[in-house]
Amino acid sequence: MSIAEKMASNQKQIAISEFFEKNKHFLGFDTLNRAIITAVKEAVDNSLDACEEARILPDITIEIQRVPKSKDQLILIAKDNGPGIPQKSIENVFGKLLYGSRFHAIRQSRGQQGIGITGVVMYSQLTTGKQTYVKSKIASESSAVEVKLGIDTRKNKAVKYSQERVIWTEDEQIVEHGLFIRTQMKAKFQRGSQSIVQYLKMTSIVNPHANITFRYINSDGELEIENCWKRATLNLPTPVKAIKPHPHGIHLGQLQRMLKDSEERKLTSFLRQNFSGVSSRAAKEVCSKADLSEGAKPKLLKTEQVNSLLDACSEVKFLPPPTNCLSPIEDLLIKKGLSKTIDSKFVTTLTRNPRVASGNPYQIEVGLIFGGSMPSDQQVQLLRFANRVPLMYQQGGCLLTQAISSIDWRQYGLEQSGGKGVPKGPATILVHLASTNVQFTSEAKEAVASNDDVMQEIRKALLELGRNLRRHMKKKKKMAKAQEKFDLVNDILPAIAEKASSLLGKPVPELSSTISKIMNAVIMEQSTYWDKESKTVRVKGILYNYTSRPRSYTILMNWPEKQGAVMIDNERGGRKETIGLWAWKIETLQSGERAHIEFGLDNLEKGDWTETEVFYRGSAEVIGASKLDEKILEEMKNQNSDEVLETMEVITEEIDETISNVASRAMKNSTGDEIQKESFQTTLFDGEVDE
Amino acid sequence: MSIAEKMASNQKQIAISEFFEKNKHFLGFDTLNRAIITAVKEAVDNSLDACEEARILPDITIEIQRVPKSKDQLILIAKDNGPGIPQKSIENVFGKLLYGSRFHAIRQSRGQQGIGITGVVMYSQLTTGKQTYVKSKIASESSAVEVKLGIDTRKNKAVKYSQERVIWTEDEQIVEHGLFIRTQMKAKFQRGSQSIVQYLKMTSIVNPHANITFRYINSDGELEIENCWKRATLNLPTPVKAIKPHPHGIHLGQLQRMLKDSEERKLTSFLRQNFSGVSSRAAKEVCSKADLSEGAKPKLLKTEQVNSLLDACSEVKFLPPPTNCLSPIEDLLIKKGLSKTIDSKFVTTLTRNPRVASGNPYQIEVGLIFGGSMPSDQQVQLLRFANRVPLMYQQGGCLLTQAISSIDWRQYGLEQSGGKGVPKGPATILVHLASTNVQFTSEAKEAVASNDDVMQEIRKALLELGRNLRRHMKKKKKMAKAQEKFDLVNDILPAIAEKASSLLGKPVPELSSTISKIMNAVIMEQSTYWDKESKTVRVKGILYNYTSRPRSYTILMNWPEKQGAVMIDNERGGRKETIGLWAWKIETLQSGERAHIEFGLDNLEKGDWTETEVFYRGSAEVIGASKLDEKILEEMKNQNSDEVLETMEVITEEIDETISNVASRAMKNSTGDEIQKESFQTTLFDGEVDE
Repeated sequence: MSIAEKMASNQKQIAISEFFEKNKHFLGFDTLNRAIITAVKEAVDNSLDACEEARILPDITIEIQRVPKSKDQLILIAKDNGPGIPQKSIENVFGKLLYGSRFHAIRQSRGQQGIGITGVVMYSQLTTGKQTYVKSKIASESSAVEVKLGIDTRKNKAVKYSQERVIWTEDEQIVEHGLFIRTQMKAKFQRGSQSIVQYLKMTSIVNPHANITFRYINSDGELEIENCWKRATLNLPTPVKAIKPHPHGIHLGQLQRMLKDSEERKLTSFLRQNFSGVSSRAAKEVCSKADLSEGAKPKLLKTEQVNSLLDACSEVKFLPPPTNCLSPIEDLLIKKGLSKTIDSKFVTTLTRNPRVASGNPYQIEVGLIFGGSMPSDQQVQLLRFANRVPLMYQQGGCLLTQAISSIDWRQYGLEQSGGKGVPKGPATILVHLASTNVQFTSEAKEAVASNDDVMQEIRKALLELGRNLRRHMKKKKKMAKAQEKFDLVNDILPAIAEKASSLLGKPVPELSSTISKIMNAVIMEQSTYWDKESKTVRVKGILYNYTSRPRSYTILMNWPEKQGAVMIDNERGGRKETIGLWAWKIETLQSGERAHIEFGLDNLEKGDWTETEVFYRGSAEVIGASKLDEKILEEMKNQNSDEVLETMEVITEEIDETISNVASRAMKNSTGDEIQKESFQTTLFDGEVDE
Repeated sequence: MSIAEKMASNQKQIAISEFFEKNKHFLGFDTLNRAIITAVKEAVDNSLDACEEARILPDITIEIQRVPKSKDQLILIAKDNGPGIPQKSIENVFGKLLYGSRFHAIRQSRGQQGIGITGVVMYSQLTTGKQTYVKSKIASESSAVEVKLGIDTRKNKAVKYSQERVIWTEDEQIVEHGLFIRTQMKAKFQRGSQSIVQYLKMTSIVNPHANITFRYINSDGELEIENCWKRATLNLPTPVKAIKPHPHGIHLGQLQRMLKDSEERKLTSFLRQNFSGVSSRAAKEVCSKADLSEGAKPKLLKTEQVNSLLDACSEVKFLPPPTNCLSPIEDLLIKKGLSKTIDSKFVTTLTRNPRVASGNPYQIEVGLIFGGSMPSDQQVQLLRFANRVPLMYQQGGCLLTQAISSIDWRQYGLEQSGGKGVPKGPATILVHLASTNVQFTSEAKEAVASNDDVMQEIRKALLELGRNLRRHMKKKKKMAKAQEKFDLVNDILPAIAEKASSLLGKPVPELSSTISKIMNAVIMEQSTYWDKESKTVRVKGILYNYTSRPRSYTILMNWPEKQGAVMIDNERGGRKETIGLWAWKIETLQSGERAHIEFGLDNLEKGDWTETEVFYRGSAEVIGASKLDEKILEEMKNQNSDEVLETMEVITEEIDETISNVASRAMKNSTGDEIQKESFQTTLFDGEVDE
């Protein structure tokens, strides 16, 4: 026997379960800390997916019990009110790797691979030798089924140890449908940023329709931790529909298989029946470009012909695939989720329109929150999500992180060494990738693999958030400067006046004209905040005329009319300018006078509305507000107000900046001298008295 | 039908090839640029593994051809002189995923999973519809076999299109054994840091026994790139032996299976026969701790008993597993590889002893090169290797990177923001993990998964390199300071003397005593460099006595005697102190005198020896050399000289530092005044003349 033959004689087939048992770290079971998080994740993903498909508002309970007197052993109990699993399917769902319904379907779902929960059963068996207990009740049967099972890894098949029908009651009620899993594994329970609690908290941000309860029982049998994340909406995510593949996303080998399996008699009908986005015209165009007859038998095409067909497909324009296969979270819910979870001063979110990369529809959503109690000397916290599932590990190797790191955040007001990498500052950045085919770097589904299209799309979304952040910071800075000056003038002048008057025995003079002269500006002060008592958002604005002449303006503010907010307590009245934009006429504001605008927003929750934009119409500049661009307003009245408002903000931002520069220069010139004179006089007064 | 049943009816088994076809990015086929590198990698890994096992010095040729008039299609040709593959095995090796010989064997190998080359065939078929051509010749047959094949992905089976026996000749010679693969795929050829050329270059660093040739033919059929990396050694890596599992690395599920399959009648013999590191005493101890009879039938143990058995195993001390299952590259070859590829001033390498983490033997090797033409304002280049395979992607998500990033390199002279992350500076850091079970983060084998033991071991190794680097930098700095002073004194004093003398018409005075007075130090200048002409390493040293008294010393230098170097041209003679350490007696060195030591080292290649340590025996300190510690020398004479030298260096480092501080303070005091006086006089002289 030659060495080659000897070597070959050692080769054999490796069972898929053997493969993943040895490579359990591919599935997320690489450390004891991570093992339990992976297990929880697989259970929760399944529950959320099943509930979504069955259109049930999910109630999910996760319980971890520390096994007394064991070496790092935990019991995981996962319970949901989902549709349940029919008796005959249980052994395959829990005992067979690469088994499932979502692998072949082109639509957004959490599970994709048919590995998840079977991996948990496998890991449990490998590390503790224990069976996994499953109880399932489906609506069409009167009793539930209880199964104890393990896996024959050499055959990739479940081993059932027992199976019984039982009545499943809870609080004396018969459970209508649901699933209960109990499994034991070698694992460690930990707290902190990579913990079950953090995972579930993040899950609740992107699944605001779910009730999630968590309990941890320590080795003394005591309930040590209990958390409950209540649903923030009763609306289930829009149902997703599986779509057919798009001709721009197909590989030659796949096309060959589809042709071979096809029942259609004509090539054009094959193209129209099996793909999305192919019109009759497009199908004909493909055939003609590929130099194939429209009536050619799909089954009989040769490799070279298939090649031409595919080349032709890449040259023809098709309709984009339908995007009802995607279920984004939507701006407002992200904002709500973020604001509820993290205390901050400023939130900006964005849901981009769905896009298609090589035939696969996908959609990017991003959020950025800034300020509040977040530490400013540390790296920004990143919240990564794919198909509504939080990604907790492998941050460094993930496309979502790479997209964030590729942006020069310094221009948007965050610290960043060299303009690359994860920035520093009191902020949290969220990225959600929704896709029919999220390409992860491994089965553990913790990091998204490289993809230029998706990268660019995330960058675009983040750049927009960056601009919002910059605008927020600039406005804050400008207001802070005006405020500082205002405080100074308002504190010092009256003090001087009073002292001088009392010393000289004269009445205190009227100072407002002097103050106006020094300030020489019209200032808009505005704040938006959540009022706990009335459970409404309050918006307050004060317009100060610190110039020496009377002024008149129309002040306008945006508000979330389209999101269903109701404006209340608007005592000043005013009128609706257009959808989402309200206007108040300030007839004449005398020098030194102020005007108040105040209203409430009902029908919102905390975090729904945190910042109000203020615009003005009038001749002289208002610090703290943007000049209204009438041309854009006109367009806006015809179109979707939100989008135009955004454009308008971007444009007014520049005008804003120019004006602000001019204004601050003007303020310096006009007041620098005045203040110096005043302080000089103060010194004189003091001096005289002391002598 | 309930919703649960409807949902279940969509579930089905997913074939492993279907799974990897959809998730081809798990295998490294995520972008067109990477696809071709992955393909090359799989072919080269297989060739190197096969040659190593068959004890053949590998000659590997990789050729990439751009397919004319195609859209991003490349042909890959891979050829080796390995043992070949027997005809009947070809279809499984190339057409069946999860098939191979290395999955179950516990030993270091490049391939582990039985996926690699089949993945290439699959990707080729998916993207081009083309078959893969394989020609194989094994030594025991007179003709070669040619096969054209593809894969039935739904069945995970090869589809053979043709098979023929042929005579394989090359340059009119019959090829004795070898393998030839040609496959076509959608892919892009690129240059730069993530390229085939870089991959092959790195491969040649860690496989110095291989000849590797690369050719790139552009779409005009022209040879555009040709590279050849010649082998640097004729020694094949030490053959690795597959070992039995170690009781500390076994999971309960595995143990259960082993017990079930066992033929042994007694538990003690089961333990001794099936595990490595289990002595008769240990087997008995395990049984007693587990409360099991030594004669218990292995096949009949119940789960609880297996549990006790495993618990007992974790409490008993076993011999470590044999480490002949590992094949490190070894210090000298790493140094050679690095120096050959990257031009630098300083190289330090380290091969740690093998260690065991949860029963798996592994070994860490590290290298650091510094200076030369590497850019100093960029991140340090990282070279990551696992089982002699370069890792080119997913740097951020890799344990090896994390270990490097976790070290505060600032203390060792590299820049690093916040003392964390990849440092900046003109350096390259190499880490090689050799293990019987490298845990990658995915099938693409590009990043190593988290593991605390391995992390700590890499850190230890890197810290040692760091210390070497710091010592190097300190020495360089000290010498540079002394040199600066020396140059200053040597330039200025004679100039003054000459000018003064010529003005005064007096003879130039003898200055050496004055210089000595100013310098007040004994300095050793030493350099080690490669002499191209004679192809030898040259070591030159000059000892300057810049003190006012005569001095006498023994100067000692280390040299690579054990590595087979031969000392030549040593005109000063001296004598061997111990292995790898040579001594020269400098009887009396008068004030102002210098002594030369010079020799060559033959039988070495460029990069083998780049730095010589200098020690001295004598009363007064020598700047540029370390005081010899006689106690350590004594030990060294009894032991392995290399190891002791290292210890000695670490100890003398501290002494070194203390002395250097004292010396530099002394120099400042003694000379600061002197130089001032001299310059004052110069001014006077000049002044008189000008008037």
